[in-house]
Amino acid sequence: MKIDTLIVSANELVTMDTYGGRVPLRGSKMQDIGLVENGAVAISGQEIVAFGETHDLLSELEIDGDTRIIDAKGKTVTPGLVDPHTHPVFAGTREKEFAMRIEGKSYMEIAAAGGGILNTSRLTRQMSIDRMIANGSKYLARMITHGTTTLEAKSGYGLSTESELAMLQSIKYLDQTEKLDLVPTFLGAHEIPEEYRDGRADEYVELVIEEMLPFVAKKELAKFCDVFCEAGVFDIEQTRKICLAAKKLGLGIKLHADEIKPIGGAELGVELGAVSVDHLVEVSPEGIEAIASSNTVAVLLPGTSLFLGKGKFAPARDLIDAGAVVALATDFNPGSSPTTNLPLIMSLACTAMRMTPKEVWPAVTLDAAFAVGLGERIGSITIGKQADLIIWDAPNHSIVPYFYGESLAEMVIKKGKIIWRK
Amino acid sequence: MKIDTLIVSANELVTMDTYGGRVPLRGSKMQDIGLVENGAVAISGQEIVAFGETHDLLSELEIDGDTRIIDAKGKTVTPGLVDPHTHPVFAGTREKEFAMRIEGKSYMEIAAAGGGILNTSRLTRQMSIDRMIANGSKYLARMITHGTTTLEAKSGYGLSTESELAMLQSIKYLDQTEKLDLVPTFLGAHEIPEEYRDGRADEYVELVIEEMLPFVAKKELAKFCDVFCEAGVFDIEQTRKICLAAKKLGLGIKLHADEIKPIGGAELGVELGAVSVDHLVEVSPEGIEAIASSNTVAVLLPGTSLFLGKGKFAPARDLIDAGAVVALATDFNPGSSPTTNLPLIMSLACTAMRMTPKEVWPAVTLDAAFAVGLGERIGSITIGKQADLIIWDAPNHSIVPYFYGESLAEMVIKKGKIIWRK
Repeated sequence: MKIDTLIVSANELVTMDTYGGRVPLRGSKMQDIGLVENGAVAISGQEIVAFGETHDLLSELEIDGDTRIIDAKGKTVTPGLVDPHTHPVFAGTREKEFAMRIEGKSYMEIAAAGGGILNTSRLTRQMSIDRMIANGSKYLARMITHGTTTLEAKSGYGLSTESELAMLQSIKYLDQTEKLDLVPTFLGAHEIPEEYRDGRADEYVELVIEEMLPFVAKKELAKFCDVFCEAGVFDIEQTRKICLAAKKLGLGIKLHADEIKPIGGAELGVELGAVSVDHLVEVSPEGIEAIASSNTVAVLLPGTSLFLGKGKFAPARDLIDAGAVVALATDFNPGSSPTTNLPLIMSLACTAMRMTPKEVWPAVTLDAAFAVGLGERIGSITIGKQADLIIWDAPNHSIVPYFYGESLAEMVIKKGKIIWRK
Repeated sequence: MKIDTLIVSANELVTMDTYGGRVPLRGSKMQDIGLVENGAVAISGQEIVAFGETHDLLSELEIDGDTRIIDAKGKTVTPGLVDPHTHPVFAGTREKEFAMRIEGKSYMEIAAAGGGILNTSRLTRQMSIDRMIANGSKYLARMITHGTTTLEAKSGYGLSTESELAMLQSIKYLDQTEKLDLVPTFLGAHEIPEEYRDGRADEYVELVIEEMLPFVAKKELAKFCDVFCEAGVFDIEQTRKICLAAKKLGLGIKLHADEIKPIGGAELGVELGAVSVDHLVEVSPEGIEAIASSNTVAVLLPGTSLFLGKGKFAPARDLIDAGAVVALATDFNPGSSPTTNLPLIMSLACTAMRMTPKEVWPAVTLDAAFAVGLGERIGSITIGKQADLIIWDAPNHSIVPYFYGESLAEMVIKKGKIIWRK
């Protein structure tokens, strides 16, 4: 077998391969991140074909003059990061709303001045697909510098059939043309659009089910369907209805659940076999129990709590201690989390949610891969998996969340190719 | 006059020049950041020689073929950032302590495993000056990428005459050889060293006063003297004694004050005419009043509150509303704030302390310059001031704190020269 690239002498290799790399790490096993000292990884084509201690690999493998040798002395090598909850396609930015919220302005004043999801929606509806792509591309370029190699990408600012499809088409185009992989999620039920706010939310739910979902499924524009299941947005029954229709069409389920009030979104997600339930700041003890006894991944978004200044974070410790599978995401979006820096989210998870510097690693690699349905293909340094790897300017895995707000990614490898270096 | 560099067409120029740029912005005036649309800045040698609207400058100034024109279309141009509280020279890193604290280990367990200031001190005492310089240089390189052009740099891990002097010498060397300016602060009274912990703190205070301070002053190794004035470290009387001795030798005063308990450090700082009092998480109403009616700058360190997971931040709003001069700093150090990212600190100040996206700008430029005694020379875009400027990949000033955790600095100009670009 021809070795195209061999990374050698890594101070630490963070493999996530402790249990073979094909099952998520849950509960106390999130500490078992599969460290290898003085590690090496061999790549052939787009795949990882060997890994282990450097001297073992050097003696076992046949290396010729064509093999690119990358010296990772003093560095840490990990799987590429997976950001399992983002909204990367949108029009405008909402820094005015950010300022107004700090100044104590009311929701109505903010909406009148151009804030809120509906205002992003108004601008996004007017946006061409070309412009959506150009904007998204700019933000994806930032993500790479932080070590992200795969992201989930939601629609949800269109809120009309035409505009939701345009968002999903731009996400598809970005997936095909950019160096990162995008996993598309249809989030038509992100908010009740303006034209249905006169008590016709159920009609909008019908539109999502009868018109949008069949289109999305037929054109294969999304892998998942997500709903903002929250008091005042879509209630449990509306959410169930949309998700059951989506499942019938072959889509997987993700939910925005229990962010503001514990209305049972987490339990519903588990009942529906959702691949993930996200936010969970207000999840109930029953919700935690339901998640812990399922394969549904709890995707936590501490950056959003920070940015909104709420001072309350999802109960990561309770979830992990109960045995759940936990992932972390940026929630990148213009209103409540304008960052693409996933390593910063790892830092916040440590400082604000008391996740350990070990636990945050599966949360952005293997468990995050399961949260987007790709646990078999990415998220760990496992033989046969796609060669998505990051070399960090850090002697060990703890240094990355420790140096909060720094960008320590030094080299990003995607499908075996170096796609970015500092 | 020969114009060496002309920055033109900036979407926004953030000048801080509203009141002439030679007085700090205090209280409600922190909003008056002197915005100029479609702005231009002219540099001759190391100085700013003109600024204003682009068309005005283009018609007024004589520009020849040697003038470097920098197009800042769509960008924001601000003064270089000043980080007025850092500890950039130290041995080792403390990611193990970070992990142990999250795991709920006790202070004693952490100290036994190599945590705490005294352990950094033990390692730093064994470090050569060359190694101190090499380590510091690595961190300064990170600071530049975040837009910092001047930083205050404290000693304080030596805790012996020899080792404190070595730290200050390494800081002096870094100031002379690196592209950034370092303002040296003597912090011999950072902690009571191990060998004085048998109830001999007063003897250590004597050592600081009788031996260290005279050396520091004679060799001109520091501009300021700082003391960690805190319950269990140096009390009010010890602090006053050290500071009075330092003042007699011509040093300015800075204080670590009221971080953990309100023992009156802020009031003491004002009484002593300190240039700044720093931390202030637990400052009393009397302390706030004292600061507000003085020229002492309140230097706030929200990153430290975040990193220590305390959930409590300094009362920035109360300070500003009372009329104080407020600055922000990273507190970069290996134990309680391992970040050099000052724009992230601006974001935290907005989200966790409710400072507005306008107020955070003087806090890292003009007011921060006054916090290190350089308000006359840097910190604003003012004619005659040093040409330290940042061009941000941001259409307006709010975008920088809004995109939290991103590094939007695109070009860093120091004393008229481009020293870094993305």
